[in-house]
Amino acid sequence: MVVKIYVVIVYDVAVERINGVRQFLRQYLTWIQNSAFEGELSEGELERVRVGLRKLIKEDADSIIFFVTSSQKWVKKEVLGIEKAEVSTIL
Amino acid sequence: MVVKIYVVIVYDVAVERINGVRQFLRQYLTWIQNSAFEGELSEGELERVRVGLRKLIKEDADSIIFFVTSSQKWVKKEVLGIEKAEVSTIL
Repeated sequence: MVVKIYVVIVYDVAVERINGVRQFLRQYLTWIQNSAFEGELSEGELERVRVGLRKLIKEDADSIIFFVTSSQKWVKKEVLGIEKAEVSTIL
Repeated sequence: MVVKIYVVIVYDVAVERINGVRQFLRQYLTWIQNSAFEGELSEGELERVRVGLRKLIKEDADSIIFFVTSSQKWVKKEVLGIEKAEVSTIL
């Protein structure tokens, strides 16, 4: 069995690269807010995400933060206001 | 001793309310990216943050997500690209 880890990614990427970053991340994770994705990944998938993002961003201009925990059970998630699903936002 | 919990907050708030939200959150947390804060809070402080944000946002238009863990030790944080400190962004 592949062990899955829970990952939240928040990003601040220049507008000309943002669609590329989103389309890439959607292959692995769920878009939960304008600048955030979450989901469960194996270590191998997480490494593919790191490698893929490095190719898509400019490391001297953009910023992506990963919050990684061994299991989603350590993290309590609360939403104030609306839950922005993918359908509510146009790419 | 007051027990501190680790909190990451990501927000998607209409432009006319965003400065108010940021100024409020800066009283409690560290601004780590355009749309994200993090830090350690007591349960009482976390409740004050919830109450304060409810007053500042429109709950039918804005979205704020809290990720709460009992300790920062459960969360590994990684940054790709630049670390955007408060000084690099103009309010």
